Amino acid sequence: MTPPLPPEPSSLDRQFAFIVEIDKLKAVLRQNSLVDRSRRENSAEHSWHVALMALVLAEHAATPVDTGRVIELLLVHDLVEIDAGDTFAYDTQGAETQHQRETAAADRIFGLLPQDQGARLRARWDEFAASETPEARFALAVDRLMPMVHNALTEGSAWQANQVVADQVRRRAESITRGAPSLGALANRLIEASVAAGHLPDPVRRP
Amino acid sequence: MTPPLPPEPSSLDRQFAFIVEIDKLKAVLRQNSLVDRSRRENSAEHSWHVALMALVLAEHAATPVDTGRVIELLLVHDLVEIDAGDTFAYDTQGAETQHQRETAAADRIFGLLPQDQGARLRARWDEFAASETPEARFALAVDRLMPMVHNALTEGSAWQANQVVADQVRRRAESITRGAPSLGALANRLIEASVAAGHLPDPVRRP
Repeated sequence: MTPPLPPEPSSLDRQFAFIVEIDKLKAVLRQNSLVDRSRRENSAEHSWHVALMALVLAEHAATPVDTGRVIELLLVHDLVEIDAGDTFAYDTQGAETQHQRETAAADRIFGLLPQDQGARLRARWDEFAASETPEARFALAVDRLMPMVHNALTEGSAWQANQVVADQVRRRAESITRGAPSLGALANRLIEASVAAGHLPDPVRRP
Repeated sequence: MTPPLPPEPSSLDRQFAFIVEIDKLKAVLRQNSLVDRSRRENSAEHSWHVALMALVLAEHAATPVDTGRVIELLLVHDLVEIDAGDTFAYDTQGAETQHQRETAAADRIFGLLPQDQGARLRARWDEFAASETPEARFALAVDRLMPMVHNALTEGSAWQANQVVADQVRRRAESITRGAPSLGALANRLIEASVAAGHLPDPVRRP
């Protein structure tokens, strides 16, 4: 007689395991500091901030968006950093392996959930990463705007610490404009004000 | 000739002020520690955690809920702590003044937004605080469950630090059961396991 199989974990058991696991996102540090410069920001509190920003700024989306779905995208968009870490926006070396590292992380983390639910939330993460739907483009705009706000209000602290120059940030602002034109204009005002204040180097380009 | 009035701040100016202001929630510390016990949790990352929990656990609500609205309630439910601080669940002295302190905070913080939008988000906060709609009751259930999870996984660290006893936590679990019966059952399993493990004192009551 073969021994009985251990019972399958229930739906709630799996959800509980996921909820406990994602606590780890609070230990993933981003490059930018808080507005008060007391410490670096973590990816969990960042995710809250951008989700609430999306709710507040939805009227600025390039095309009308389902705000609820934007918020869902933003609540899960950084979960993969639990395994893959935060890849800094201007880290070209890290960017080469980012997709592979994050896909493996998504497989594991969303795989903790009951299968249907894991697939549904994984689809949200894929949608954000692909940046093709109006919701994903607006979510990306908000996600990219916030570190510019943090930098602009902290004398460019993360830009300076990582030798970022203005043209890199200007290119990054293009996707803000695509998702939300008026927020792109705001981003560009923040960038140019930071350049003018000497907080973001803008080397003169050779003719 | 009277001098011209300064221009009214635009809608985006007001939204920007709100978004910068709420960064301060990341500095409000709660009593419970993270699962890894590395430090205490802050109210911003907590807000992210419970919003995502609500998305994952919605099927357990006592009655069907509009998940998008539950998430909105949870994204704003702790904003008042920027001014009023976090009132610990078992702080009876703090509870006496909590409503007054938090109402004044809500007036100020939601008042930063454009008037219509501020009123709409303030209504979400009022809805959570009143705990009467199915969405508010489910949001409260999730909000109350999470610190029990944190305590159960950290040998009752916040309970012990604050001399909390089992009956206080059991009473608190009643509102979890009201909003989500199966989550209430989970909370009670966590409580009794913590009692059995000696992490939550359960003084024998006199007959």
